[in-house]
Amino acid sequence: MSSDLFFIGIDGGGTKCRARLEDSKGTLLGEGVSGPANIMRDSELAKASMLDAISLAIASANTNCDNAIGLSQCVVGAGLAGANIASAKQVFETWTHPFHSLHVLSDLHAACLGAHDGESGAAIIIGTGSSGTVWHNHAFHDVGGHGFPIGDKASGAWLGLQAVKHTLLCLDELAPIDALATQICSALKTNDINDIVSQCATFNTHHYAALVEQMLPLLYAKDETVSALFEEGAAYIERMAQRLLAQHDYPLAMIGGLSNVYSTYFSDSIKARLVACKATPQQGAIHYAKAACFQLKGE
Amino acid sequence: MSSDLFFIGIDGGGTKCRARLEDSKGTLLGEGVSGPANIMRDSELAKASMLDAISLAIASANTNCDNAIGLSQCVVGAGLAGANIASAKQVFETWTHPFHSLHVLSDLHAACLGAHDGESGAAIIIGTGSSGTVWHNHAFHDVGGHGFPIGDKASGAWLGLQAVKHTLLCLDELAPIDALATQICSALKTNDINDIVSQCATFNTHHYAALVEQMLPLLYAKDETVSALFEEGAAYIERMAQRLLAQHDYPLAMIGGLSNVYSTYFSDSIKARLVACKATPQQGAIHYAKAACFQLKGE
Repeated sequence: MSSDLFFIGIDGGGTKCRARLEDSKGTLLGEGVSGPANIMRDSELAKASMLDAISLAIASANTNCDNAIGLSQCVVGAGLAGANIASAKQVFETWTHPFHSLHVLSDLHAACLGAHDGESGAAIIIGTGSSGTVWHNHAFHDVGGHGFPIGDKASGAWLGLQAVKHTLLCLDELAPIDALATQICSALKTNDINDIVSQCATFNTHHYAALVEQMLPLLYAKDETVSALFEEGAAYIERMAQRLLAQHDYPLAMIGGLSNVYSTYFSDSIKARLVACKATPQQGAIHYAKAACFQLKGE
Repeated sequence: MSSDLFFIGIDGGGTKCRARLEDSKGTLLGEGVSGPANIMRDSELAKASMLDAISLAIASANTNCDNAIGLSQCVVGAGLAGANIASAKQVFETWTHPFHSLHVLSDLHAACLGAHDGESGAAIIIGTGSSGTVWHNHAFHDVGGHGFPIGDKASGAWLGLQAVKHTLLCLDELAPIDALATQICSALKTNDINDIVSQCATFNTHHYAALVEQMLPLLYAKDETVSALFEEGAAYIERMAQRLLAQHDYPLAMIGGLSNVYSTYFSDSIKARLVACKATPQQGAIHYAKAACFQLKGE
């Protein structure tokens, strides 16, 4: 019976949803990419994005197959942003979905399972947001995350917000105008405080994170203000890594746009545990779905 | 002709709108209080709140008068939260209002004019938000404000947000659980991270500021974490005061729920400039309206 099943792995984030379609032997059959799939922010949009990405993956597969793959033949593992919030996950799981079965986990957990190919290990995602987890004894233990502005310290959104705060401090003449303030004003195309405040009133985490592009050249040029911000962020990520790697000898995978930047700050003991990712979050989500599906069926 | 005019001063904030009705000689005729009047957050609600507060003020006056006071006889000075944002003020001023005339200024400016009874001077409002201004040569110069989370450092909302961030750090076991984390968990009635994140997802500045109530007893007990947060806030308010009081010898009025707390941190040179408020923001708004009205009429 399971030979008729297909497996789909979803990596759904705040801007994109990626789907990977495999047959029961693990052969890649097709892939698809669509829009946002954060179930905390918009559960219905996340469903639509998932269906879009899956349709694209199946369509790309069907060009090579004689028989169309039906949604009811698909075991779906969905690693979704927002699924770490219990209430958001609960609401999402009431979905009368068209699949054979649906197994929801957070995007962080899918990334961790992918990074270590289903084996025990820790992962830190540091991009627009920041969060960490360790997969140990068939359970996850999470650290950080929690969203903006209460959590996600060191993330791109956090860095961008600090840069805007610093810029306003300078424009208020409470600190001297420096290179960072100049860069941020140039990125926002104004040095008028009211203009900046109006722009930021519409900013989400992605807008703030986009400002990191202005900050990195200053970091590499050893600008004092920017270096201090990254050092504050790095101290937090180091503490997170130490917490995740305590009491075992698992490896640590760093994922996300800022992972290379922050990895250079790690202490030697953390650096010694760093490994490259073995597989994608979509593959991690398939790992999870297969384990859940075969456990349920007693296969 | 101006003897037929009445003057109304409005103090409109994020939760309440207060109206003061005076005759042309400055005699208090009536007062009224209604709901929120932040024109950045909800311009239409602000208009409704203003009309409610004014109706109440006129109604309370009419019980003592023979002739009803019409709205078209009223010169209104409206000190409104959000009026510091040029775009919000512009939209609000397109209102086809029923008054003799309407003169809009920010709640901060009205409070400053009230505090110094129309004379030159500086004012810092530090409650749910934080901002400062100085009234000098018939012009205001503002420092700080800018809203949450990019600005309003040291404010109640800022303090509460720092407390929540600290609590999450402790619950993530990245720092030891301390008295502040315990107090915040008790206030939020949970020590579950997901519960806290879900609650905070619906928090506005007032929810965060409400947590200051849990922090003050710890501050007075010289708790290290809480003292450090207030010291960081106080350093910002000191810088703001120094900026406002530079280049002249005007007095400084401190307004808002946290003004007494932060005033104790000021340097001696700033403490020497502190004065009590001479009048209310509503009276400040009337000052502004009278000046604008009589300037226009050339009286």
